[in-house]
Formats: sequence, structure tokens, C-alpha cells
Amino acid sequence: MFDLDPRLKNDCIGLCRLSLSHLLLMNNALFPWFILVPETDVAELCDLSTEKQLLLLDEINRVSRFVKAHFVMDKLNVAAIGNVVRQLHIHVIGRTLDDSCWPGVVWGSGKSAPYPEAERQRILRLVQSDPEFIPIMQG
Amino acid sequence: MFDLDPRLKNDCIGLCRLSLSHLLLMNNALFPWFILVPETDVAELCDLSTEKQLLLLDEINRVSRFVKAHFVMDKLNVAAIGNVVRQLHIHVIGRTLDDSCWPGVVWGSGKSAPYPEAERQRILRLVQSDPEFIPIMQG
Repeated sequence: MFDLDPRLKNDCIGLCRLSLSHLLLMNNALFPWFILVPETDVAELCDLSTEKQLLLLDEINRVSRFVKAHFVMDKLNVAAIGNVVRQLHIHVIGRTLDDSCWPGVVWGSGKSAPYPEAERQRILRLVQSDPEFIPIMQG
Repeated sequence: MFDLDPRLKNDCIGLCRLSLSHLLLMNNALFPWFILVPETDVAELCDLSTEKQLLLLDEINRVSRFVKAHFVMDKLNVAAIGNVVRQLHIHVIGRTLDDSCWPGVVWGSGKSAPYPEAERQRILRLVQSDPEFIPIMQG
């Protein structure tokens, strides 16, 4: 049984289950901000098995290419932090030179705006029909 | 010819050259803050070749285990951000529940204290004699 951390459940929108991870969208329309939550009990990337690291690396690559393909962005921010939510999760965020936090990081900025329902649905459909995700989408 | 970004050169202490990356120590004694700078022209992790991604993943694992082994730490922060310095570089930072930024992130905090010379030398010797790094150390 996999339990998503309550804070991630509260702050994010579930998109799909991939080979190893659950793919979430941070409910913040200011940034294309995706989160991968691998099904594991370890808190650190380096404590994942080699097999799981390789699955996760593939998923990070797919999410990165997805963000590059579908959103205006100048730079990706890819990070495993986990100071507040200890459950291992990897942020993949598209940043632009004119976003509200640039060039600072988004974590802790407090800048947030929930998605309008239509935009949330649009991103969900984008993910569910994207050739990056279809081969590794579960269930 | 590989040119390290002038800002990284200014802010960090060079430790050694690994299979793919240069290993640097951020000159900030408040955190055990290491930086891997792979020799590449691409700015995003997802644009590295598979071969280089695997080398980098191995190096991130080695630096992570090194930080866990030699420093007091409660959580690792591993991140490729690059908003300010575009040259691809990966932060591996040991965080503690009582460090000066916890639970916030260190980037942009402005909290910094340069290493005393003796401590800088101690960390350099630790790296250069560590079984994690010896097998992949170059030159």
C-alpha cells in the first residue's frame, strides 16, 4: 500500500501513475510545476536501488521533455529537497525569465495561484495523451 | 577546453576532477555544500546523452554517500537549478534541522560564511583520500 504524503495530496493534482512514480501537478498556475513521487520508503535518491534510480531518471527525462514541449520555458529546475515533506519526491519545474520568482527559486516564495478548472483539465489531457507517458503509464 | 563559469570559480573551491564532472565545494562553511559540474555544453540534465547521465548519476550517488559519511546531516538536497549560472551544475547539500536556513532552501538565502583555511584543507584531504572518489578521480 502506497500512501501519498497528506501535504502533497493537499497541494497537488494527481495526473497519472508511471512505471515507478506518481506524477502530480502542483496546484499553482504561476509555473508548470510537476512532481514525481516514486513508490518507495527511502527518503534519499542515493538510497534507491540502481533499478529504481534508472526508472526514476527515465521518468525525470520524460517529464522534462514534456515541459519543454508544451510550456513556454527558459530553464528547468529539477530538485529533490524534502525538508518539509520527507517522502521522496522530485520537482521538475519550467521557469521563464519573466516569471514571478525569477531568478530566485520557487520553494518558499509563497507565490501561488490555483489552476482554473479548465486549465487543470487541459494539462491532465495533455499528459494522458502524450507519447512520452503512454508507454510507461500504469492502470 | 572546459571553462568553469566565472561565478562558480569565484564562489567555490575546486576539489577534484571525476569521470565526468569537476567536484567543487561551495565556500560556505554553514552547510556541507558540494557542486558537480559535468564537462558539457548542454544546460539541462535531460539533454545529456544517456552515457553522461549515467556517469553523473553515479557521481551524485558518490557525493551523497560522502556527505552522509562525513558530515552531520538530516536531509540531502540534490538539485539542478541554473537560473543564475546557466552552466549545468548539480548541488548536493547536507542539511540539518538546526542549520540557519532549515526548513527553507539555501539558494538565495544570502547566508554565507567562508571556510577557515584549515577546514577547507581538511575537506580537500577527505575527498582526495575517500574510497568513493579514488576509483573515478582523474589526473
